[in-house]
Amino acid sequence: MSQATITGELEGLGRRARVAARVIATSSSAARDSALLGAADLLEDRAGEVLAANATDLRRATDAGTPATVLDRLRLSEARIAGMADGLRQVAALSDPVGEVTDGWVRPNGLRVSRVRVPLGVVGIIYENRPNVTTDAAALCLKSGNAAFLRGSSAAISSNRAIAGLLREAAAKAGLPADSVILVGDTSREGAVAFMGLRGLIDCLIPRGGPSLVATVIESARVPVVIDGDGNCHVYVDAGADLDMAAVIIANAKCQRPSVCNAAETLLVHRAVAEEFLVRLPEILAGVELVGDEQTCSILAGGAAPATEDDWATEYLDLKLAVRVVSSITEAIDHVARYGTGHSEAIVTNDLSAAERWCNEVDAAAVLVNASTRFVDGEQLGLGAEIGISTQRLHARGPMGLRELTTLKYVIRGDGQVRP
Amino acid sequence: MSQATITGELEGLGRRARVAARVIATSSSAARDSALLGAADLLEDRAGEVLAANATDLRRATDAGTPATVLDRLRLSEARIAGMADGLRQVAALSDPVGEVTDGWVRPNGLRVSRVRVPLGVVGIIYENRPNVTTDAAALCLKSGNAAFLRGSSAAISSNRAIAGLLREAAAKAGLPADSVILVGDTSREGAVAFMGLRGLIDCLIPRGGPSLVATVIESARVPVVIDGDGNCHVYVDAGADLDMAAVIIANAKCQRPSVCNAAETLLVHRAVAEEFLVRLPEILAGVELVGDEQTCSILAGGAAPATEDDWATEYLDLKLAVRVVSSITEAIDHVARYGTGHSEAIVTNDLSAAERWCNEVDAAAVLVNASTRFVDGEQLGLGAEIGISTQRLHARGPMGLRELTTLKYVIRGDGQVRP
Repeated sequence: MSQATITGELEGLGRRARVAARVIATSSSAARDSALLGAADLLEDRAGEVLAANATDLRRATDAGTPATVLDRLRLSEARIAGMADGLRQVAALSDPVGEVTDGWVRPNGLRVSRVRVPLGVVGIIYENRPNVTTDAAALCLKSGNAAFLRGSSAAISSNRAIAGLLREAAAKAGLPADSVILVGDTSREGAVAFMGLRGLIDCLIPRGGPSLVATVIESARVPVVIDGDGNCHVYVDAGADLDMAAVIIANAKCQRPSVCNAAETLLVHRAVAEEFLVRLPEILAGVELVGDEQTCSILAGGAAPATEDDWATEYLDLKLAVRVVSSITEAIDHVARYGTGHSEAIVTNDLSAAERWCNEVDAAAVLVNASTRFVDGEQLGLGAEIGISTQRLHARGPMGLRELTTLKYVIRGDGQVRP
Repeated sequence: MSQATITGELEGLGRRARVAARVIATSSSAARDSALLGAADLLEDRAGEVLAANATDLRRATDAGTPATVLDRLRLSEARIAGMADGLRQVAALSDPVGEVTDGWVRPNGLRVSRVRVPLGVVGIIYENRPNVTTDAAALCLKSGNAAFLRGSSAAISSNRAIAGLLREAAAKAGLPADSVILVGDTSREGAVAFMGLRGLIDCLIPRGGPSLVATVIESARVPVVIDGDGNCHVYVDAGADLDMAAVIIANAKCQRPSVCNAAETLLVHRAVAEEFLVRLPEILAGVELVGDEQTCSILAGGAAPATEDDWATEYLDLKLAVRVVSSITEAIDHVARYGTGHSEAIVTNDLSAAERWCNEVDAAAVLVNASTRFVDGEQLGLGAEIGISTQRLHARGPMGLRELTTLKYVIRGDGQVRP
């Protein structure tokens, strides 16, 4: 298809999403919950259809020589489908953010001003291979009164079509427009760029994927975007730290799930406790490859290779950790300012002024005192669910839940006031 | 200069702004207020310097044959400078949004979670001819702990340089970095595009200007943007309206200041009151050119020319009004959905269910009941001051005050929690 044809088709889909968004924005919470619960039931009742579609995707991917890790992300099973259905039910059980009055006041002239949460409108999600993003993203969009405009990868297209079909069926059964969920059928690279360019048709675009997808979005998007970016997260063990607590926290932050954005990638240790703490690392972090600055290497005597400048800036997403000794909390804060990506930054300390300085001076979506970076996650923080973790500063920062899928509307009530 | 040279210079300025932003973000409210008050005094004490610089701009603009209305926007006087100084003092007197705890809760595992307002960082403002935007924008940025990265027009460059110089001097006197305010010297078109592309150096870009500037920003920006867009605002006179109140409101919304974005551009009238209300228009709106649909033209018998499709979509910003008779509130809401720009939409009615439907179903930054659209303004709504009126849905919607120049940071405090 030519670029113009692709763009034309996408615009047509976008206009349908826009029409649906107007309807779902003022629909009842009950209707939206019913759509989510209905979709959960349909997913389980008709799991066979979804698995058959998934088998098509897997066969094509296998034939194309796709690596095993990617195949794993693509693969569905009865258990994974049950997990997706449970996810839908959990989102249905959350409270509805739409209609919440965030604040209100009365002006001297008697005008009553309030601000009310309303849906964003059409939320575009562009994502990679996991078919479960189709239900996760659609559920959060529907719950918050938005139309979900989904653009998955070519590898998962059959699975996504089957899943989106069930979501649309459930929406219609609940009296909502089927177009509350629209999956883009074109999965070409040109199509992705055209999707990101649907100004006026997508109110918010959220990429869910790796650095190359994010880079393409930054370069090509002409619609408002929330970036779910990298996490080069640090744990800083202060002079005033309880070292047993520090050991538990760094082990958890690095090893509990190394492949995710809120895992720690660099350990900073105050020189006052460096000797005592670092010699424990080989035991605390058994199986983790260590690279360090000169002092670290000398303390660990062969247990760590020298770190390069690149190491400080790298999100390993693996059992590897960069370690640096700092001479003060100021040096630690400066290191984070230089190399951090503004995601999640933890200090371990019992020193109140150090904790306060960390919280005030470290610039990140989340700062933590005496807790693992792994808590920076919508579910862990109590948001109920998350559509991503924003590393940008505009609109949403940190884990994005249902509220972050809304915007505000000023409602102003008077009795004939005019401006003098 | 070549594009690469321009970009290199801008990146250098952006890095300086970034360094200053880190300092001002954690500065005391007292220091920031002192900078603003000091700048107000400097502006008045050294008004002569500013007026001399302004004379240079005016001479150049006059020689280039600039129209009188543009010259007027460019022109400063003792009175206008006093107004700018007063504006600085008013912003200093507002309460500081930085550090406000917006919400907080405790997790079952004992983690204490809170969200705190922090500055956006480096706020880029790109604007047209009015030199007072230099103080207005810088004041709101400084007050909210942001570095102001300003890019004005070539026509006002001498005035802007003089004003920015005084702001920088005042910042330094208050113990803040002079680079808390940086004015871009290059005012070429290539420079504007390069400025909008400073990804990683500008945290939020706000264009203050007309449709062509906004279009360029949408096309060229690679940084997060808040769009201060058009206002094609409607007043709908419902069947249940008090027609005397409706007369006062439409006159105010159209005529009190027709050149601004919150002025009304289209009047919708329910057919039940059309005859009675429309015959009063020539008196209510004396001096306003009217265009209307067929019914309006027939009622006004020569008092209105036929409206074209374009009229419904046009922001006149002038003493001209499009008028349409609708057969129901649904038709009025549909008209607004089709032609509105999501700015400010007013209903006049005493019918409660009509008022509720309008507030719920009309999708705009602000909906009003029985009040003039002209109230949709930061100062009128009590925000103290505004840096613009956002017509986008992400981050900020409607009048943007100091809070809209901040973002949130999660602060998470524990006593050794790790994730199971």
